Amino acid sequence: MAPSAVREADIARLPLKTDGAKNGSTKHAEDVQMIESQDKTQFVLGCYRVLIADLCQQFNMGHPGSAMGMAAIGIALWKYVMKYSPSNPDWINRDRFVLSNGHACLFQYSFLHLVGYQNMTFEQLTSYHSDRWDSYCPGHPEIEHPGIEVTTGPLGQGIANAVGLAMASKHLGAQYNQPGCEVINNMTWVTIGDACLQEGLGMESIQLAGHWKLNNLCVIFDNNNITCDGSADIAMSDDTNAKMRACGFDVLEVEDGNYDVESIVRALVAARVSKDKPTFINIKTTIGVSSKKQNTAGVHGAPLGKEDIEYIKKSNGMDVDKHLHVPQEVYDFFREAVPRGQELEKDYKQVLSKYTKEYSDLAKEFNQRMKGELIGDWTKCIPLKDSFPSNPEPSRKSAGNVGVALAENIPNIMLGTADLAPSVNLSSKTKVDFQSPSTQVSSGPNGNYSGRYIHWGIREHAMASVSNGLAAFQKGAILPVTSSFFMFYIYAAPGVRMGALQSLQVIHIATHDSIGTGEDGPTHQPIELAALYRAMPNFLYIRPCDAEEVAGAWTAAINAKETPSMISLARQDVPQYPSHSSRAGVAKGAYVFVEEEGADVTLIGVGAEMRFAVGAAKVLKERHGLKTRIVSFPSQRLFEAQPLQYKREVLQYRSSAPRVVIEAYAVNGWERYADAGYSMHSFGHSLPRNDIYARFNFTEEKLAGKVKELVEEVKREGMESLRGEFRDLNTEYVRDVFHSPQGVVHDKR
Amino acid sequence: MAPSAVREADIARLPLKTDGAKNGSTKHAEDVQMIESQDKTQFVLGCYRVLIADLCQQFNMGHPGSAMGMAAIGIALWKYVMKYSPSNPDWINRDRFVLSNGHACLFQYSFLHLVGYQNMTFEQLTSYHSDRWDSYCPGHPEIEHPGIEVTTGPLGQGIANAVGLAMASKHLGAQYNQPGCEVINNMTWVTIGDACLQEGLGMESIQLAGHWKLNNLCVIFDNNNITCDGSADIAMSDDTNAKMRACGFDVLEVEDGNYDVESIVRALVAARVSKDKPTFINIKTTIGVSSKKQNTAGVHGAPLGKEDIEYIKKSNGMDVDKHLHVPQEVYDFFREAVPRGQELEKDYKQVLSKYTKEYSDLAKEFNQRMKGELIGDWTKCIPLKDSFPSNPEPSRKSAGNVGVALAENIPNIMLGTADLAPSVNLSSKTKVDFQSPSTQVSSGPNGNYSGRYIHWGIREHAMASVSNGLAAFQKGAILPVTSSFFMFYIYAAPGVRMGALQSLQVIHIATHDSIGTGEDGPTHQPIELAALYRAMPNFLYIRPCDAEEVAGAWTAAINAKETPSMISLARQDVPQYPSHSSRAGVAKGAYVFVEEEGADVTLIGVGAEMRFAVGAAKVLKERHGLKTRIVSFPSQRLFEAQPLQYKREVLQYRSSAPRVVIEAYAVNGWERYADAGYSMHSFGHSLPRNDIYARFNFTEEKLAGKVKELVEEVKREGMESLRGEFRDLNTEYVRDVFHSPQGVVHDKR
Repeated sequence: MAPSAVREADIARLPLKTDGAKNGSTKHAEDVQMIESQDKTQFVLGCYRVLIADLCQQFNMGHPGSAMGMAAIGIALWKYVMKYSPSNPDWINRDRFVLSNGHACLFQYSFLHLVGYQNMTFEQLTSYHSDRWDSYCPGHPEIEHPGIEVTTGPLGQGIANAVGLAMASKHLGAQYNQPGCEVINNMTWVTIGDACLQEGLGMESIQLAGHWKLNNLCVIFDNNNITCDGSADIAMSDDTNAKMRACGFDVLEVEDGNYDVESIVRALVAARVSKDKPTFINIKTTIGVSSKKQNTAGVHGAPLGKEDIEYIKKSNGMDVDKHLHVPQEVYDFFREAVPRGQELEKDYKQVLSKYTKEYSDLAKEFNQRMKGELIGDWTKCIPLKDSFPSNPEPSRKSAGNVGVALAENIPNIMLGTADLAPSVNLSSKTKVDFQSPSTQVSSGPNGNYSGRYIHWGIREHAMASVSNGLAAFQKGAILPVTSSFFMFYIYAAPGVRMGALQSLQVIHIATHDSIGTGEDGPTHQPIELAALYRAMPNFLYIRPCDAEEVAGAWTAAINAKETPSMISLARQDVPQYPSHSSRAGVAKGAYVFVEEEGADVTLIGVGAEMRFAVGAAKVLKERHGLKTRIVSFPSQRLFEAQPLQYKREVLQYRSSAPRVVIEAYAVNGWERYADAGYSMHSFGHSLPRNDIYARFNFTEEKLAGKVKELVEEVKREGMESLRGEFRDLNTEYVRDVFHSPQGVVHDKR
Repeated sequence: MAPSAVREADIARLPLKTDGAKNGSTKHAEDVQMIESQDKTQFVLGCYRVLIADLCQQFNMGHPGSAMGMAAIGIALWKYVMKYSPSNPDWINRDRFVLSNGHACLFQYSFLHLVGYQNMTFEQLTSYHSDRWDSYCPGHPEIEHPGIEVTTGPLGQGIANAVGLAMASKHLGAQYNQPGCEVINNMTWVTIGDACLQEGLGMESIQLAGHWKLNNLCVIFDNNNITCDGSADIAMSDDTNAKMRACGFDVLEVEDGNYDVESIVRALVAARVSKDKPTFINIKTTIGVSSKKQNTAGVHGAPLGKEDIEYIKKSNGMDVDKHLHVPQEVYDFFREAVPRGQELEKDYKQVLSKYTKEYSDLAKEFNQRMKGELIGDWTKCIPLKDSFPSNPEPSRKSAGNVGVALAENIPNIMLGTADLAPSVNLSSKTKVDFQSPSTQVSSGPNGNYSGRYIHWGIREHAMASVSNGLAAFQKGAILPVTSSFFMFYIYAAPGVRMGALQSLQVIHIATHDSIGTGEDGPTHQPIELAALYRAMPNFLYIRPCDAEEVAGAWTAAINAKETPSMISLARQDVPQYPSHSSRAGVAKGAYVFVEEEGADVTLIGVGAEMRFAVGAAKVLKERHGLKTRIVSFPSQRLFEAQPLQYKREVLQYRSSAPRVVIEAYAVNGWERYADAGYSMHSFGHSLPRNDIYARFNFTEEKLAGKVKELVEEVKREGMESLRGEFRDLNTEYVRDVFHSPQGVVHDKR
């Protein structure tokens, strides 16, 4: 089949040999000229497609279609264009490859095997969908495995990660590259299917890549026009190329993505030399090509069946009696991958060597960054207790002070917001924005790629998911910090979860975290969101009550190298408690805030609602003669890690004094730690921030009244009367407050 | 200021008088010709802008800028173009208006007042940001208030709702309109700012509107190029018009959106007669126009200050000493709104009258729909117990059987999926897809607007948010049913929440709901998501264990007229329990599954993990001689609504037998109902579905072993030994299973 030409929609036709290739050595471009003969290529394509089909048949499950359809793309990437070293998957300056259509993972696993990644033995490859716990071929690619840059699967995440990886390259290159010493100049390649163009997250990421002119990013569209429900046009009519151009991408097309390796190579090389735009390559493929059921949804996620596989083998000229067979010629086809990779590494070592000699200070810092160390002493950025004001201040402001100091002093930190800069208090006066140096911002300021302040726009989900890519580039080299209103971390939740799953350290600053937000109303007032983040594995949700606890929260978040964190902060003033609050206590998740011998009750205060616990304790003492001890409980996850003895000391499980948790959220999850709760049982309301807590019965008097009743009951009947029946002390308000004058009850429980 | 022309980017210039206006009577088009004099209009614009500024100054907070900037748009909509009746905000065929940039709500509130909505008195208008609980002017528009179609605030939600409202119009029109009797033919207008073009949800919705050719939708872009962080181009470089065209919209522009009412009117009228595309009107405005700080982020969300307001009053020719003053001329300017609306209603009554006469059966059904009644007897679609198979079957299949029967028989139901039709089992053979009648789907089938099966594409968030719009059109007329994998309802969560907040009945069918999903791995296996949905106010999360409980779940969901639901279902086979399971029990949230006198322990089985409770009970009896009673607990929210006595009977709080909950999720929230839990404490893993539960220690033997230990401890030391310390019985596996051969511990707790 004669190769069809690449139709460049936007840029002039390039010769194969590239001059001044931005991201490759001339040597590599010369390699590219030596495209293998068509016969050989077709043979390898056939063997590959048969292998995929057999692998999905082995345990009678899998996703064969896209992997088969993308075979030629894979050859173009792994044999001809990408810079990588199979013998060293951790080589810093390797090209990054992301499979955003993660269900097609067999595509990537197979090529990793064929080009010689040592962990991806044939035995491992054939463990796809087996019951091996330690298989390198799980149902979707996982970051822990060599050759896999990020975990994908949920659609849109991969392309977002790729944007982050490309940002990281640009940024680190801008920070450390010097003339003649390009220590970071790799390319990022990401494949997508139709799904990533439909998912909102995909579009958010595409807009950002275009805005930042990430010319080191190439998005490869496996355009097979098939989704689970049928052809893609069952739910989509976009002019995709026009849309991508409108978002600032160069667009190239390949007509015959099934067989025309050379045209794909040309397009990829053109992407690599793109001057100032990311590239989108629209490659037309046939899902499950060479199967009887090709071009249908049936080949997407199910085994093809013995009969079809026979057919596939015949039509590819293979022996129908051989199963899971890779002829030696196929391994020969890819034989140069290992030595070429080692050659690239050798060249790189020379660059590093020159760099170390001529720019020794910078090189020292660069090496530290690549080892994942934070540059400088971050602990000095955390204010000491005696520096805090005694007046109330919003905890978002306390956190902002720390965040700004950290951002100013620790080069690893890239901090940004989803268009709430004035509200989240994290803008340093000396900040430099991450922007393309050629971007003119009407309001100013302009920026450049060395900038470490990120304007994410109103894209909370991309903020989280792209940040995972920033963190994944090289573990610890970049510490991303995101920020928005806590309520809008419900938009970001899929991306936040992916960070937890991949053990990527990202710190999320979540302000305006309760009804205390006030006037904005119930759409902005979280009630149930903390329950999600407290239940999420490998995630640290911390809700500090004052500036001292904020210091503890930041400390815990920075120390959690394998775990993302969220610091939950108040919009409104919170009192400061210099005699009680303790950053060391935060590290333990909960601690005794105010001890009291022979206490009648323990109040557990959380975050912005601590002031009600403290206020109620005063009322209980002065008006009712009752003794109260107070526990502060900023983080359930950290508390769970403590020894049992410590937990018992703090919570006094066996005492005859009941424990009441006080937080203006749904109480789900607190029942483990308390006997009763003073909580929210509905959505919030739009009211001024000075009025809203009281409207929902959060006043010291009312709380003290309810606690007193509970204490009296326990004194009469013993703790036994509470056993097994968690008490909600604040349910009456629902009927009171939602009966509007019009006589309509808005039952928002 | 001379009005500038509308520059139509795509369509020919239209005369003001429209012939064959798709969505308006000729009479209304003639109204449009009578554009008021410029002097009058400028005067009203000035008064309006001053009013907005004063309203935000009154309590020293608010969002003045966009409302001021959009004044001319408001006049064009409410005085000239929209069809509505202030005396009857519930008139069925009214145009729907949505303010997707919800923070600019003063814009809408003010016009509702000026055109004469009875509830929006001047006193009410001036309650914006006051401490009135029952204010009609909360910080963001709320659906419960007359004149407000949907609650907005979180960005992207409004435009998604608008797509749903437009779909509803198309669909109901296709179902019920007859020649000469158009009972539903209204237009939907939605304003957006930059944010809704950045939010992924906005793009998902735009793609759907373009794909479905919703020519009855007009998106009005308040293009002020300002966001919180500065000019919009700080984070966005899209060619917005080109992008909208690529997504299938007609694009119009208005150069002077601040003052040129006539050009805006022309554009809106052009949108109304659009033949087969939704319209996007790109209107250039200046945020906070006439303020000293106009065109800066400073006017977005803060009061303007006394000095600036004086300046604004002066530059608009107003008396600086008058505050919150609306001259009578302004009311006169809008005086025709009420009578015109009543005239429109009168015309409509005639249409209805003719319809009732000539199409009486259809009219009867139409009236029922508009009253919110389900047509037909849905209870007949819920299979009786004796019709269920005795063999195991996946609960997603059981639910699918019910779902298909409902969809086939109940016209109110519009059911769809986010591209997982083969997996969610909800496709009826007789289904008709919701599509534009002119859309050719490559794979087929084609559809039309009367279709009730919706292909959402890979857009879970839009699926939920647009469905809120479908439900909001007319309460109960449409009952949307969505479907996807449970894990991907983390993408949909913001939209699901908005449904709960607005009391909109939408049913979400969430399949593949646990580690039982198997091979797809941890990205697809929910652990913490149920905690979110169980804690969400006004939301019903139900996890049925077999087909009988599935019947109960559907029943509860359909009966919940003011509450959205999620039915959580297994991918894999679950056993059937004809002697134990009970749909009546589901209605109570939890019930006794297997009673046992003198039981040593109560096991709480949930959903797909019920089989471990049942299996362990058998082992406990046969091997350890222990008696077990079993409780099934499909819904916490329904259980909480039961009387205390019932709850005590089911859970036996005071018994000496401990209660153990068994669910393969994080246990957060179950501590209210149990003393111990057998749960997940990490993310999942990619393993075949037949192996995965066992790998995480979910086997009857291991579970029985742990329960036996607990029972023995309690027998020795009494229930007191468990008091206050919830027991996690399944934590050891974390160390066991995450120690990979390479010696690396993946600590995914």
